[in-house]
Amino acid sequence: MVKRYLSLITFDEALHILKTSFAVPGRTECVSVTRSLGRVIATPVYAHYSVPEVNISAMDGIAVKSRDTIGASDQTPVTLKEFARVNTGNIVPPQFDAVIMIEDTWEAEDTFQIRKAAAPWQHVRPAGEDIREGRLVLPTGHQVRAFDIGALATFGIADLNARTAHIGIIPTGSELVPLGVRPAPGQVVESNTVMAQVLLEAMGAHCTRQSIVRDDPDLIQEALRTAAQENDLVIISAGSSAGTRDYTAGAIGAVGELLFHGVAVKPGKPMMLGKIRGKPVIGLPGYPLAAQTVLREFVVPLLEYWGLAPVPKYSVNVKLATPLSSDLGFDEFVPVSVGRIGTRYWGMARSRGTVVQMSTVRSNGYTHIPAPVEGYDAEHDLEVFLTTDPANIERTLIFSGAIDPILEELGNIAHDQGLFIHTGSAGNTGAILSLKRNSCHAAPMSLPAFSLMQDCRFIQPYLTSMDLVFVNIASQEQGIASVKEISPDALDEVCWINSRKDTPARILFDALLSSHNLTPSRIRGYDNEVATPGAVAAAIRAGQADAGICSKGLAESHDLLFLPVAEEQYELVMRREMLNDPRIVTLISLVKSPEFRAHLDRSGAYCTTQTGRIRSLSSDNIEIRIPPACNPLNNS
Amino acid sequence: MVKRYLSLITFDEALHILKTSFAVPGRTECVSVTRSLGRVIATPVYAHYSVPEVNISAMDGIAVKSRDTIGASDQTPVTLKEFARVNTGNIVPPQFDAVIMIEDTWEAEDTFQIRKAAAPWQHVRPAGEDIREGRLVLPTGHQVRAFDIGALATFGIADLNARTAHIGIIPTGSELVPLGVRPAPGQVVESNTVMAQVLLEAMGAHCTRQSIVRDDPDLIQEALRTAAQENDLVIISAGSSAGTRDYTAGAIGAVGELLFHGVAVKPGKPMMLGKIRGKPVIGLPGYPLAAQTVLREFVVPLLEYWGLAPVPKYSVNVKLATPLSSDLGFDEFVPVSVGRIGTRYWGMARSRGTVVQMSTVRSNGYTHIPAPVEGYDAEHDLEVFLTTDPANIERTLIFSGAIDPILEELGNIAHDQGLFIHTGSAGNTGAILSLKRNSCHAAPMSLPAFSLMQDCRFIQPYLTSMDLVFVNIASQEQGIASVKEISPDALDEVCWINSRKDTPARILFDALLSSHNLTPSRIRGYDNEVATPGAVAAAIRAGQADAGICSKGLAESHDLLFLPVAEEQYELVMRREMLNDPRIVTLISLVKSPEFRAHLDRSGAYCTTQTGRIRSLSSDNIEIRIPPACNPLNNS
Repeated sequence: MVKRYLSLITFDEALHILKTSFAVPGRTECVSVTRSLGRVIATPVYAHYSVPEVNISAMDGIAVKSRDTIGASDQTPVTLKEFARVNTGNIVPPQFDAVIMIEDTWEAEDTFQIRKAAAPWQHVRPAGEDIREGRLVLPTGHQVRAFDIGALATFGIADLNARTAHIGIIPTGSELVPLGVRPAPGQVVESNTVMAQVLLEAMGAHCTRQSIVRDDPDLIQEALRTAAQENDLVIISAGSSAGTRDYTAGAIGAVGELLFHGVAVKPGKPMMLGKIRGKPVIGLPGYPLAAQTVLREFVVPLLEYWGLAPVPKYSVNVKLATPLSSDLGFDEFVPVSVGRIGTRYWGMARSRGTVVQMSTVRSNGYTHIPAPVEGYDAEHDLEVFLTTDPANIERTLIFSGAIDPILEELGNIAHDQGLFIHTGSAGNTGAILSLKRNSCHAAPMSLPAFSLMQDCRFIQPYLTSMDLVFVNIASQEQGIASVKEISPDALDEVCWINSRKDTPARILFDALLSSHNLTPSRIRGYDNEVATPGAVAAAIRAGQADAGICSKGLAESHDLLFLPVAEEQYELVMRREMLNDPRIVTLISLVKSPEFRAHLDRSGAYCTTQTGRIRSLSSDNIEIRIPPACNPLNNS
Repeated sequence: MVKRYLSLITFDEALHILKTSFAVPGRTECVSVTRSLGRVIATPVYAHYSVPEVNISAMDGIAVKSRDTIGASDQTPVTLKEFARVNTGNIVPPQFDAVIMIEDTWEAEDTFQIRKAAAPWQHVRPAGEDIREGRLVLPTGHQVRAFDIGALATFGIADLNARTAHIGIIPTGSELVPLGVRPAPGQVVESNTVMAQVLLEAMGAHCTRQSIVRDDPDLIQEALRTAAQENDLVIISAGSSAGTRDYTAGAIGAVGELLFHGVAVKPGKPMMLGKIRGKPVIGLPGYPLAAQTVLREFVVPLLEYWGLAPVPKYSVNVKLATPLSSDLGFDEFVPVSVGRIGTRYWGMARSRGTVVQMSTVRSNGYTHIPAPVEGYDAEHDLEVFLTTDPANIERTLIFSGAIDPILEELGNIAHDQGLFIHTGSAGNTGAILSLKRNSCHAAPMSLPAFSLMQDCRFIQPYLTSMDLVFVNIASQEQGIASVKEISPDALDEVCWINSRKDTPARILFDALLSSHNLTPSRIRGYDNEVATPGAVAAAIRAGQADAGICSKGLAESHDLLFLPVAEEQYELVMRREMLNDPRIVTLISLVKSPEFRAHLDRSGAYCTTQTGRIRSLSSDNIEIRIPPACNPLNNS
């Protein structure tokens, strides 16, 4: 029963086969002009009539014969008997050839006096000035903009022929439930085809999503047959891996022809392409990030090739904030968060777990690492394609360090002020390195009480090289998190999960053991290291260990018991020059805000007596001037 | 009855009053996730449950207890009796803590043999790996993207609260007919509010457009009262100038308060702002380009300030192709066409006639000239805001010269190949200057027969300084266009319209007069100059003159009679280095294409024997290699 992928084909090869193995369907539809925004014109649009159709007045005034006005001046005013009162847009009767503005006339009984001659055709809009009957308004291939719609309406064009494609989408998987149904454990909401439909309909396609098909070869074949008959393109979701219930490849082969299965693209390796009734059938991998990649890198380009509305693709050149590895031989696509620090753009790569959709949600771009590349060092120059409006980059703050759940609340408040906080998890050493590299705006860190910081071995070596300031978010208790109650006198009786060396949690753990005269060798799980305090809590919650050291906040957010051991300050550490960045000034004003403090207080895990206090090692209290917030939303 | 604007207020002042005089409505609505693309989140979205909810398998294989696998190797295989067969996504039963890939097992009856120990938690996705119950998915202010929708669906979020605003739109004007009704002469299709609705609904607003209100103060007041009652913002279109039937300002004043009337913005001067029931009422000028400017520069920023979805705004720095004047004291907005020539971006300003909607349709951007600026010289550095996808700039070709109607057909064919031709009208001297400045890709020119070109006084002075090539489009007859028949022996009996000095049409006219022994002083209208051959034909069509010199094509497209006088070549003149630009190679292949030739032949106004021939003054025939077209649409 063990199946493996056929030999993988390359990204470029797969795209080439996709584009060249099928006829371009060239499907079009008639759409109302009022619903044509963003659609691509399939048939050139010509004006039905001239605009204006006849000569009309460009001013409010009187239509006159210009030859009647010859010689008019202040000294020799002319009184006109033949004229027509016209407002802007009125027809200029055929016997007249000029309009005099009402401000330049003196009305008296049934006549108008003027004191300046009118040039022939002055203030007259000639027929056809905007467009002449039969002339081209919009060519084939033009993507309709809002202001084009004004012109189309003016020219009497109420509907137009737009490019489209009919796409049949088949979700498969016995574990799936449709959106709106609460999944039982082991069930998953079918979301990939929802995402596909939204993405592709924004390009002008019409998608028909079938009901979820369970893992049954006959049902899948039947669904494929129906979809291929009714559509220009079929997308079948999931069942594309090599498990015992992955029937998609077989079903395509049974109903039509399987062109390839497996591409050297990550995420997205299980992608497949088939042909049924001459139509392309794309097998979308089940993992969300793999599905996204196949949609973005294969399906979207195919529809663009077919002439549908392109998906905008803006890129920005950044320096890589942290090293990024890549599998040789695979084209990899990695979510990235981009921000400007000083005069430079930095990109922070995000998790590549193909199931972690939050890494896409939390990023504002992605990068493409070509197959021959094994990875990049930090500070490598990288092209990042943006998934947000480029203006949002300027509003992005990059935090690299210890990510406490309270940062989410700060991020939510900041978002309302137009600041987007992107966080990357790093230990204290990683955070300090980011500050040194100047590749983050701020490093959130859990640190010992401020008075002890001079002795702190994470910070000390950098004191001389960087002028750092510490913005206090809150103090919080560190201690032992566990599912069942732990006795401090029986630390060697449970299985632990530990943090990496040189992290505050690790040092606290070592100190704790030492105070109980225990050596690491006597502690089960001491060598079980995870990367972040959050991972400690998650591991305990998941039953991978009985206990570990983390903050009270993390313990509570994971529904764990908590035994306090020490108090630490949660600080935003940054270079002093950051205090000149208006975005940081806004951020600090938010940390000091009553709204944020209320959040901290409500959570119960934090002490807020020092919240918002800014210190450096040389000065115990730094005051910064917080101007009235510049963000418009704040004025409401 | 003469009304004038109150003193104009500045652009910045008007924006400030608009933003600060009204409460932010803060209106929200519940939308289905499947219809939430591009919408702005009004209430933070939190996960309803953890994803995954329990530990699940990340691979197809068997779930095992890792401690059972200790010691397994090729030499000492271990046979497992306690296991569960799992596929990717299946629940890992609580008694197991690892998954072994099916490829790494050997099945035998009811057991599996393994040859390598499993690390605890290998290939297990812990509960909450993607997101934990109650954690923030999307913060307030986030604009929903297609791939966010996948995550929302996965997390069981079927609808969300999005920001919106209710906008009441009132079209006014007795001369208006609704879209779908053919306007009689002097009538106009009401299009400004159609455009407004499309533009603002794309931001997430809901617009209610009233029926057209005729120019009656009572009806307008009633419409304003209703709209202000039901909406957060009222837009009233037209009636904002100073004509006898411009009742809008008065009506606002009668029902509420008029805050200002008239801004120092062009186009857009008659804009007004009022307040009714505490709601903003924006008076949109009737002229389409003025309405566009007020929508884009005032209404869109107000809605963005209210938190609705921003309209993307991308800018590019260009060199100005031709001088651009501006009124001191007015913030001016000018449509621009941007293209890349060599390594430089050039911007060609387009017509600013406030009624010529085609100048917006034909442009791909616009520039903002601040109030204190009187204008810019050619080659000035200019910021242009794009109205198309930035990728389209690369596909834009700028032509500056004599614009014959056949270029529209070439433009339409080129558009299908991904090339957008933007044309700017210029006389031969202007065209030559553009070539010298290298600010156009090609200059379409009407020139004397090629054999005579060495003697041609337009070209000759530049022969030594530029290496020009001439791509023949067609030859065409030049002659006398008129509404009524003209006798060549009675040229002094009709009224003429003339072209500017140094244009081929002017020279031909002079030669024609001279051959009939006529002096300009004997010709009525000789001094009536217009800028382009198209304007000559339009002027005759509009009855401004009886006759003029233009091409057979222009005469026919304006339904004029035509009396041939001489034959000219219509050539695309360009620098020789342009032949290396792949876009120009594609363009030339289109000029040579049977499709384009068929268009020329069908029109009847052109002779195509030399169409597509490329020459320079030193070589009578230049061959260029046209590779198979690179555009994908061509492969279909």
